[in-house]
Amino acid sequence: MQRITRFLLLTAFALLFGFTSSHAQDYAIERVEPLHWWVGMENPELQVMVYGDDVGDLSPAVDYDGVTIKRIQKVENDNYLFVYLNISKDTKPGTFDIALLKDGKQELSHTYELKEREQHSAQREGFNSSDVMYLITPDRFANGNPSNDSVAGYADSLDRDDDYGRHGGDIQGIIDHLDYIEDMGFTAIWLNPVKENAMESSSYHGYATTDYYKVDPRYGSNELYKKLSKEAEKRDIKLIMDMIMNHSGSNHWWMDDLPTEDWVHYPDEYQQTNHRRTTLHDPYASEKDKNVFTDGWFVKSMPDLNQDNPLLADYLIYNSLWWIEYAGLQGIRHDTHPYAGQEFMAEWTCRIMEEYPNFNIVGEEWSVDPLVLSKWQRGSDKPENFSSCLPSLMDFPIQTTLVDALTSEENWGSGFVDLYETLSLDYAYANPFNMVIFPENHDMDRFYRQVNQDLDLYKMGLAYIMTIRGIPQFYYGTELLMSNEKEHDHGQIREDFPGGWESDTKNGFTGKGLSDKQREAKAFVKKLVNWRKENPVIHTGELMQYAPKHDGLYVYFRYNEEKSVMVAFNKSEEAMSLDSDYYYERLDGYTKGTDIITDKTYMLNDLEIPARSVLILELK
Amino acid sequence: MQRITRFLLLTAFALLFGFTSSHAQDYAIERVEPLHWWVGMENPELQVMVYGDDVGDLSPAVDYDGVTIKRIQKVENDNYLFVYLNISKDTKPGTFDIALLKDGKQELSHTYELKEREQHSAQREGFNSSDVMYLITPDRFANGNPSNDSVAGYADSLDRDDDYGRHGGDIQGIIDHLDYIEDMGFTAIWLNPVKENAMESSSYHGYATTDYYKVDPRYGSNELYKKLSKEAEKRDIKLIMDMIMNHSGSNHWWMDDLPTEDWVHYPDEYQQTNHRRTTLHDPYASEKDKNVFTDGWFVKSMPDLNQDNPLLADYLIYNSLWWIEYAGLQGIRHDTHPYAGQEFMAEWTCRIMEEYPNFNIVGEEWSVDPLVLSKWQRGSDKPENFSSCLPSLMDFPIQTTLVDALTSEENWGSGFVDLYETLSLDYAYANPFNMVIFPENHDMDRFYRQVNQDLDLYKMGLAYIMTIRGIPQFYYGTELLMSNEKEHDHGQIREDFPGGWESDTKNGFTGKGLSDKQREAKAFVKKLVNWRKENPVIHTGELMQYAPKHDGLYVYFRYNEEKSVMVAFNKSEEAMSLDSDYYYERLDGYTKGTDIITDKTYMLNDLEIPARSVLILELK
Repeated sequence: MQRITRFLLLTAFALLFGFTSSHAQDYAIERVEPLHWWVGMENPELQVMVYGDDVGDLSPAVDYDGVTIKRIQKVENDNYLFVYLNISKDTKPGTFDIALLKDGKQELSHTYELKEREQHSAQREGFNSSDVMYLITPDRFANGNPSNDSVAGYADSLDRDDDYGRHGGDIQGIIDHLDYIEDMGFTAIWLNPVKENAMESSSYHGYATTDYYKVDPRYGSNELYKKLSKEAEKRDIKLIMDMIMNHSGSNHWWMDDLPTEDWVHYPDEYQQTNHRRTTLHDPYASEKDKNVFTDGWFVKSMPDLNQDNPLLADYLIYNSLWWIEYAGLQGIRHDTHPYAGQEFMAEWTCRIMEEYPNFNIVGEEWSVDPLVLSKWQRGSDKPENFSSCLPSLMDFPIQTTLVDALTSEENWGSGFVDLYETLSLDYAYANPFNMVIFPENHDMDRFYRQVNQDLDLYKMGLAYIMTIRGIPQFYYGTELLMSNEKEHDHGQIREDFPGGWESDTKNGFTGKGLSDKQREAKAFVKKLVNWRKENPVIHTGELMQYAPKHDGLYVYFRYNEEKSVMVAFNKSEEAMSLDSDYYYERLDGYTKGTDIITDKTYMLNDLEIPARSVLILELK
Repeated sequence: MQRITRFLLLTAFALLFGFTSSHAQDYAIERVEPLHWWVGMENPELQVMVYGDDVGDLSPAVDYDGVTIKRIQKVENDNYLFVYLNISKDTKPGTFDIALLKDGKQELSHTYELKEREQHSAQREGFNSSDVMYLITPDRFANGNPSNDSVAGYADSLDRDDDYGRHGGDIQGIIDHLDYIEDMGFTAIWLNPVKENAMESSSYHGYATTDYYKVDPRYGSNELYKKLSKEAEKRDIKLIMDMIMNHSGSNHWWMDDLPTEDWVHYPDEYQQTNHRRTTLHDPYASEKDKNVFTDGWFVKSMPDLNQDNPLLADYLIYNSLWWIEYAGLQGIRHDTHPYAGQEFMAEWTCRIMEEYPNFNIVGEEWSVDPLVLSKWQRGSDKPENFSSCLPSLMDFPIQTTLVDALTSEENWGSGFVDLYETLSLDYAYANPFNMVIFPENHDMDRFYRQVNQDLDLYKMGLAYIMTIRGIPQFYYGTELLMSNEKEHDHGQIREDFPGGWESDTKNGFTGKGLSDKQREAKAFVKKLVNWRKENPVIHTGELMQYAPKHDGLYVYFRYNEEKSVMVAFNKSEEAMSLDSDYYYERLDGYTKGTDIITDKTYMLNDLEIPARSVLILELK
């Protein structure tokens, strides 16, 4: 409300008196964003946002070989100035001043740096099907630096007794345990958002950004995040950043002094989104429903950004590029993907993929229908008005069906059949092998809970995720059978990893104090994930699946020129013989198979799958 | 087995002794099919199958202006001769002899007729969204001719006490009640199959064809079927034939003397289909599963036809064309569409649509996933290897979701929301307005049972079917609240229509003996269907739907340049006000609406939808 009053007053003054607020003594620069940039980017254009008292009254000037001002955009709030630079191909790295002039006289100046890019930066390889991703909620994994558990000026301070409070986990904690992550076989880490969330409460989840260029000090700093990237890289672990284009946090610094009235939707009268993602593809949708969906706020603490404003669209895109380049990211996980609307999501993904053609971005569209997911993926041709460069999506259909399949009765139309049928719909996707598959994420019950705390089902589920097509993603602690007691309780789902805090008596990293079941699960995961890592046949090999033939028996194969792997599930209560003749297309030429978990070798002509188990057989 | 032995013996004799079975006295013609043909068809080619003792030893000859023999195809069983004629464009109608010669000497002759086509035959208009289809199970609707209830030579004779027995309904019964059908507002009739089913038992359903060129005598005759068509035409009622390409009945006449060993799949060793329709689109399917799906038998009494045999493929296609032309059909409902495999289904549909470009065919693919249905529809581009000319499909997703929506709790994610979401997936279809929508069919519980015998839900459901996009299809007796007592009992579902038998005490046609509820339902259906008939805005108008905003309130609009109709459902237990501002896109310019069922007029600015009801308002 305050800011609107200010706009109106300024506008009224300007109209009535030809008044401008430019008094030399008022000028000041508070922010220049992006913080710096690089030479040699594919897109020579750069938007620089200058924020500070009355900077909008000033005219920018630069003097640096290769850099020119392409366009200056002033807005109704004269505390903002948007300067579009052109940085020509052969510009040298270095620093230069952005001078801000009034009537030809320099009032302010800001030194801006153009850095050299790291080698092969543009060609960096994103996460792909050779990887297994480890999802970490940074506040809940390990507390590497207790001195930043609470930080002056940030209301939400340490309270480990509160499920929704801050627990002190941080980036240093993750760095400290990269060896563990590597040892378990994971090759990529996705952290829930680490950018500043200066919110009053529940800030631990990180989805209410209050500064796009600053890592939350309770997690560390921009520099420490970059260090994490470097340390991970040494271990061949890729870093994936969680980003949110749809909304910021209500305590974002600009909320008290918005650049334009249309910077956020519904600035004055709260309108909640209707969450009807359907409106984007529904041929019969009303404009009203569409508007409420894309423009309504996600929740009261998260203002809906108006990406139809091209200045904001650019701001967000340059911010994303900045983090990729600055922190050496190998991927982005994009939150609430559809909520920002298909047009901006197309622009955002395409501009990122133009800069980094081998990069990867996985979008969250929480639909269990492959038809709905597929429309977002790069290369999709339906609906006709949809186009996007999003390479990957979170495979919610497989997640949901996997749990249903594991926990439901086996018969002709239920159980593994569901999984078999859902997978058959892969023809909907332009690239099913680039879908991210997962047993759970931070927004749903722990996988072990979802499978009724049944270790056999847990193993079958993880075996599926690790051998079917796609890019597997684990959630931290799944290897320790972490399980939330209260259904859908986010605070409990994101429980502290045992051993991440000095005072912890149990330790998941070392194994100290773990139960036998936990030890068994951890060993299973470690063996499975490390085996997958060494077997390209799982990353890129062909897939052939057979319709479940007998209740509870589901068989598929992964194969390439070098290797064939048979994956056979038996969910029934009794051992089942496999009629090897039926699978002649894939078994021809092989006589035995060695299970990759137990190292036991089985003869194919006399193969029995033990009750409630899975065999992953390397064929010989 | 018998026929195989015969093949082998014949082959052995022929090899050993240069023996041929041609003795003049053995020759005989039993069948020539198609029974006749027409001049002026789009495709000048015609396959004529000649069947009879040793006709395969003879050479055919014809002498008629414009008709030439293009190709003669002999098969391993010399009781068959396949003659491909070319009938040039300007051939005159008339008769000619097909002479069968041995060493230049005529042994046999058959007079074949080429008829003139009815005017505009090729341009006939198929059923479309202006129609409402009435599905009739002929054995169960009305017994117009008791003298054919049992027929000599047909084992399955009259037994009205047996749910799965023959009840005596027939084509004459349908002819007798065309006025009723017209009066109710229906403009098309689809009869479950009427071709001969000379099976031992359960033959009443008609899906086990034993002669492709003969109406079952217990229903009448070919001539009577044609008369039905003519009588229907007088009342502007279209006739739709139920066809089955996948299988015949095990008592089909050719089963004892197959033309070729590969005429049916698995002739010797019974193999049931796995019913895995998924194998057709699954990118990971095995050849084995695919084979068992398309080549396995539907059930033991229905041999799986091998349409990969081009002679059989042609036989079936010419048979379909023959019925369209002979009986003046306006459409085909095709049973178990995917089971004959996508290649033949593409050929069959495309060749029919080439002859009759404005025709309509609706295929049965019992999937509740629009993604799966959409692949079959003409104009679909996914999967890439799929192509077909099928114009329409049975909309199982809408049927299933409608019942779920009506019978489930209303909340943010359940109830009408399901219907809203399923409809939003229409972008999957090349032509959603040509989908056939239905509350039930002959293979599922009666609709009234599906909605828990709740008259309010029944009315809402039928109102939906009658006002949403697509071509509605009713099942006979739905207007009388017919309901099967035993779940999924096909015999009960296909109960006798009261009043169709002389001894019946209740009469659905006249209304005699109906309960108040039945009378109310019948009046509702009659008003609704007749209103739809006169309102092109429902047939072809635009559709706009709104996401259910409050629990149980679902609103959509049909509109064109002339008219706007608002359909508003309230499934809750209390009356609900409609916030007319929210619907400004469609209500702008209107002040009131008249409900088409009650003729009551409502003011839009003060609109209340009564509890558990639907308003269909013509806006003014």
